[in-house]
Amino acid sequence: MKKLKMGMIGGGTGSFIGDVHRKAASIDGMIELVCGAFSSTPEKSIASGKDLGIPSERCYADFNEMIAKEKELSEEERMDFVAIVTPNHMHVPPAKLALENGFHVVCDKPVSLTLDEAIELEDVIAKSGKLFALTHNYTGHPMVKQAKAMVANGDIGKIRKIQTQYLQGWLSTAVEQTGQKQAAWRTDPKKSGIGGALGDIGTHAENLIEYITGLKIDEIAADLGKFGEGRTLDDDGNMLIRMDNGAKGTISISQIALGEENNLAIKVYGEKGALEWHQEQPNELVTRWLEEPQKVYTPNGNGLYPEALEVSRIPAGHPEGYLEAFATIYKNFATQLNAVKNGETAEKTDYPTIQDGIRGMKFIYAAVESDNNNSSWVKI
Amino acid sequence: MKKLKMGMIGGGTGSFIGDVHRKAASIDGMIELVCGAFSSTPEKSIASGKDLGIPSERCYADFNEMIAKEKELSEEERMDFVAIVTPNHMHVPPAKLALENGFHVVCDKPVSLTLDEAIELEDVIAKSGKLFALTHNYTGHPMVKQAKAMVANGDIGKIRKIQTQYLQGWLSTAVEQTGQKQAAWRTDPKKSGIGGALGDIGTHAENLIEYITGLKIDEIAADLGKFGEGRTLDDDGNMLIRMDNGAKGTISISQIALGEENNLAIKVYGEKGALEWHQEQPNELVTRWLEEPQKVYTPNGNGLYPEALEVSRIPAGHPEGYLEAFATIYKNFATQLNAVKNGETAEKTDYPTIQDGIRGMKFIYAAVESDNNNSSWVKI
Amino acid sequence: MKKLKMGMIGGGTGSFIGDVHRKAASIDGMIELVCGAFSSTPEKSIASGKDLGIPSERCYADFNEMIAKEKELSEEERMDFVAIVTPNHMHVPPAKLALENGFHVVCDKPVSLTLDEAIELEDVIAKSGKLFALTHNYTGHPMVKQAKAMVANGDIGKIRKIQTQYLQGWLSTAVEQTGQKQAAWRTDPKKSGIGGALGDIGTHAENLIEYITGLKIDEIAADLGKFGEGRTLDDDGNMLIRMDNGAKGTISISQIALGEENNLAIKVYGEKGALEWHQEQPNELVTRWLEEPQKVYTPNGNGLYPEALEVSRIPAGHPEGYLEAFATIYKNFATQLNAVKNGETAEKTDYPTIQDGIRGMKFIYAAVESDNNNSSWVKI
Amino acid sequence: MKKLKMGMIGGGTGSFIGDVHRKAASIDGMIELVCGAFSSTPEKSIASGKDLGIPSERCYADFNEMIAKEKELSEEERMDFVAIVTPNHMHVPPAKLALENGFHVVCDKPVSLTLDEAIELEDVIAKSGKLFALTHNYTGHPMVKQAKAMVANGDIGKIRKIQTQYLQGWLSTAVEQTGQKQAAWRTDPKKSGIGGALGDIGTHAENLIEYITGLKIDEIAADLGKFGEGRTLDDDGNMLIRMDNGAKGTISISQIALGEENNLAIKVYGEKGALEWHQEQPNELVTRWLEEPQKVYTPNGNGLYPEALEVSRIPAGHPEGYLEAFATIYKNFATQLNAVKNGETAEKTDYPTIQDGIRGMKFIYAAVESDNNNSSWVKI
Repeated sequence: MKKLKMGMIGGGTGSFIGDVHRKAASIDGMIELVCGAFSSTPEKSIASGKDLGIPSERCYADFNEMIAKEKELSEEERMDFVAIVTPNHMHVPPAKLALENGFHVVCDKPVSLTLDEAIELEDVIAKSGKLFALTHNYTGHPMVKQAKAMVANGDIGKIRKIQTQYLQGWLSTAVEQTGQKQAAWRTDPKKSGIGGALGDIGTHAENLIEYITGLKIDEIAADLGKFGEGRTLDDDGNMLIRMDNGAKGTISISQIALGEENNLAIKVYGEKGALEWHQEQPNELVTRWLEEPQKVYTPNGNGLYPEALEVSRIPAGHPEGYLEAFATIYKNFATQLNAVKNGETAEKTDYPTIQDGIRGMKFIYAAVESDNNNSSWVKI
Repeated sequence: MKKLKMGMIGGGTGSFIGDVHRKAASIDGMIELVCGAFSSTPEKSIASGKDLGIPSERCYADFNEMIAKEKELSEEERMDFVAIVTPNHMHVPPAKLALENGFHVVCDKPVSLTLDEAIELEDVIAKSGKLFALTHNYTGHPMVKQAKAMVANGDIGKIRKIQTQYLQGWLSTAVEQTGQKQAAWRTDPKKSGIGGALGDIGTHAENLIEYITGLKIDEIAADLGKFGEGRTLDDDGNMLIRMDNGAKGTISISQIALGEENNLAIKVYGEKGALEWHQEQPNELVTRWLEEPQKVYTPNGNGLYPEALEVSRIPAGHPEGYLEAFATIYKNFATQLNAVKNGETAEKTDYPTIQDGIRGMKFIYAAVESDNNNSSWVKI
Repeated sequence: MKKLKMGMIGGGTGSFIGDVHRKAASIDGMIELVCGAFSSTPEKSIASGKDLGIPSERCYADFNEMIAKEKELSEEERMDFVAIVTPNHMHVPPAKLALENGFHVVCDKPVSLTLDEAIELEDVIAKSGKLFALTHNYTGHPMVKQAKAMVANGDIGKIRKIQTQYLQGWLSTAVEQTGQKQAAWRTDPKKSGIGGALGDIGTHAENLIEYITGLKIDEIAADLGKFGEGRTLDDDGNMLIRMDNGAKGTISISQIALGEENNLAIKVYGEKGALEWHQEQPNELVTRWLEEPQKVYTPNGNGLYPEALEVSRIPAGHPEGYLEAFATIYKNFATQLNAVKNGETAEKTDYPTIQDGIRGMKFIYAAVESDNNNSSWVKI
Repeated sequence: MKKLKMGMIGGGTGSFIGDVHRKAASIDGMIELVCGAFSSTPEKSIASGKDLGIPSERCYADFNEMIAKEKELSEEERMDFVAIVTPNHMHVPPAKLALENGFHVVCDKPVSLTLDEAIELEDVIAKSGKLFALTHNYTGHPMVKQAKAMVANGDIGKIRKIQTQYLQGWLSTAVEQTGQKQAAWRTDPKKSGIGGALGDIGTHAENLIEYITGLKIDEIAADLGKFGEGRTLDDDGNMLIRMDNGAKGTISISQIALGEENNLAIKVYGEKGALEWHQEQPNELVTRWLEEPQKVYTPNGNGLYPEALEVSRIPAGHPEGYLEAFATIYKNFATQLNAVKNGETAEKTDYPTIQDGIRGMKFIYAAVESDNNNSSWVKI
């Protein structure tokens, strides 16, 4: 099987998430990086591409040039899809251009700077007929798949309570004032949008809830914090949620939870059972039951649903981590894209889409509105 | 040293919390049970007392009789204090009578059925000049003492974020309809008050927050649930909190969190460090720091403050649990009471008081009011 | 029910294990301390007794005086049994005298200074017709009872492999040279016997293996270490074991495993299932299965055998610890002793006996012999 | 930077370890697979290659053909090195041929079928002047690097005690008789050598000990088990070890430890500190100290040595796992190989070599000899 050809927008040398996308895309051997507009200047873009083994003629000055030039190449040679790994304000413009010029798109989250942009993008995608994947990577973990399957199969019964947290501590001090690039754009409303931590990590929490439970968050009451000196965007948030089936819950997010590394966790309580998953120990799914003892599931371990088994790459006990879960998004996207290219019936595979992106943007908007109204309930 | 003499109100055979109080009071060898009004009928009271090795003449029909008759005994012989371990509606009446008749009091929580009752009791205590302890037992754990001392010493800096949960699952089904006595009174507003889970476990969460941080909860926004069939009191609650120093946080409580046993936990994030403690693993205090790796403290282990060392009974690695922490409340109360009896200057030792009880009642009232107003913020 | 009367030999003020025995004996309200020969001098014994609320006339100069004087008291008044909590060399002499004078005995472990002494004591016990309990306290944990019951019921099938460790670090430096009393006698062959860590903690490991599995250790190959400066007794040991059913395994013990607190743990692998238990997290029993996911049992949680339920005092999720497990030895002993006193048929309850004591001494002797023969296999 | 070109021997469709090598080699974008002799028949080799996107002309019938044909290609086009991922008996023959024909080699472990073969290979490597890496992949974990650095920097002082285990349960039943290929060759002495579990997992344990501690195992006393029906090779082993500095310890390995997945763990106790690492939770290094509390290190977390920081790919809290550690072996090998190719001074980077392979074979031989002599001590 020939590899799919990926062009990257953003992700130059030193980028965190660009490197993650490249590693994730490469793990399963289905995708190769062939070109990129890696950086804001042509020089940097070429330098980054060189480090990555990309010929200089395919290191472009910007995404406009990239899309234009790649389009001129033969089908055999040109990129199949673009991976967009820029700050939030630069997601939709290249995504639209790529789609309108016949390229499929993988895009980092949150999908856009504004909600309107996201809704507009949905149209563009629909019209283009191209594939669009959003990298809510945590849905790629085998134990998240198992959790979703258990809920879908009714194992835990009707859901009553959900507890979710996404806690980081890296913005505990005002590192954005010290030249830390990752912090700089994330705390800048022009590049990040109206949500700070809300967009960066809150959307992951929101997406994970809806992915696992199959429910929608109906309304939200939010109390946001701006603890870091000089911050204009939230770096902390405590939220109450009500689900569309009557379940209730909390979402707690923070980038000033000092000492926390990447503590995303979710607990779901139903009428018959309960589930607990922690991103930092991703290879365990703890389950609780009315009459039976606690059971702990592991990737490729006993008792799993096919949805979990399919995405476990290595035998039980050999930990898979962040990159592998990320890679599963790419793998599923690539599987469908291969089918599309081969003219086969290409059923939608399991990866997040523009609809997830719009939900994320609505979540941000609702949380900010609630916070502006002293935590009153706002519908998503 | 002679043992202090305890009379018990409530706690007949089969009682959970009465047995806990007796075991806790006995562990440190400072207290002996000498009499009781253990149950609602004289026959049951005597039968319970017999099981406990109490002579039948000191097993009383009710607390009125007990207080009257004990008062007539010689100082040498009569009880020094009463332990009140009845359902909530029967806390204040015997407490008042005991205090007014010269007996010290240890009382289970929440302190009263209504807030007014609690405020009235405060007066009675003040006038009596007697000691009054409220058994917020979780404050007795060595690692909770360590956490409090670390905050007080400024180790973690100004507090920004607090996450607290108290999750149980034992009311996931309507066990109160099956004759389960513990469930029956806790779900009955006449015996429990206006709070269900709020009073039973929420007050522990509230107390733990204020004990460890030294801060007060300033206001609260609550979304309560009544999931069990036929329930009129809350069995679940999700709350936002704002502290009097500007910190923000969440409290999540539940008795329908299926499969959870007694999952009380707290995380406190400051500007310089952070603390995490779990009641089900009470012998670990996880701490996080700006520049240093995570450090885990253990009872009698390295690096503790005196406040933690003083309440650790056995060498490091020999787990102490629920009863030992409960016993520490009794031990500290007994230490002060011995001093009082000996006519020494009896400094207040470290145990919860009526002021903690009033805070708990205000917490319940504020949460219920907020919930009645669609989760609007209410001052405590 | 009247309390049983306990006399204590050893355990004066400042003693670790004497205090543990007293607390453990008191928790369940079945036993009261009435007299003692608490220390090596009459003055210290009286001072210790005073702290404990014992009248000075029942604080004896030594165990000879205690046994003689108590015997003269009325049956109503005199002690029912002695608890021996002295260093090893002072176990058998008072035990024999007590038994020969009609008193039952609870004795700390290892049971004796020498193997011969232990065998002789077995005879004395048999002739006396009195009860004798040895405080291998770790067998008192609910999850140890559950493990034993699961093996006995064939849940894990024929046992193939056993891994046991008992790791402490408190003798990492030569603290016995600094006046630390606990360390001083344990490192002194005259008081400790031929085993150092072997006797102090190794016998617990050995006893736990045989208690849970119902098997006997058939032979042992030991490599002992004497790492602490100036030590003549082992402070570390690595051992291979072969069980009488063909299973194989390891025992690793140490008191120089720096930073370890009281890390006793056992793993048992059978043909159908496997068990894992850690003393420092005593309220979890992890089990593994051929076709099912890992299951975790907890005290008073779902799916337990009666043997585990019977010894859990408080609801699930309220941790019981070291003292409670120790108390279970006393409780079971007291239950049988009450029956004996009441002239009832007094079936042997579940507590360790002289036979466990002899197994422990044989274990020590076999390990030392093996070590002296360059780790050759020695039968126990 | 251009990618290094890898040819693979073994690892056809359905292979576990071949797929691991390919994913690991691809993660860091430094290596591409260009050819292979993937299977025992030309047809299967071509089919496997097709799945992997390899042109059929570079899918060879066997390694002889592959090495001969690749040698004829231009330097620009031909493979730079071979990755050998066959069963043990097929490691040395292709390795020798590749080296003698100018190709560098990455080889799975254990390095050979017999000890003699390994020693012979050492000569061939030396004469060839080519690079040779052995994939003891667990040495690639950031927390293993941190552990090694802490020992090397004297942080934990002189080492006294080592506990190592490598426990799996997948051979608990005789799956090799059911057509399971992975089990079939591992239990067959003709393909596996004289060690079963010893070679497959015991060598990893041995290598990890020597890698982290910088010490050598001096002698070993082994008790091996053959529990699976019909097995002629060990599937379980309990071992005592003595290190060349006087430290003592244990190694326990098993493939019949039912329910264990891939439980490799090591504890190292020194005179000043202690270290604990578990492969199934690879992103934590627990450390213990004489006077300070336990400290837990994490990849890219606070307080790490450069050796650990260098091999952490993603921010703290984003778990890296088995594949990433494996990838670090390839990355380090590739880094040196790039230098070699560029004619730079190519310092040996940090990856295991033939010397590690010979140590592993000596370990297997010593353990088997000891077991044949009833667990007597045998020098390695």
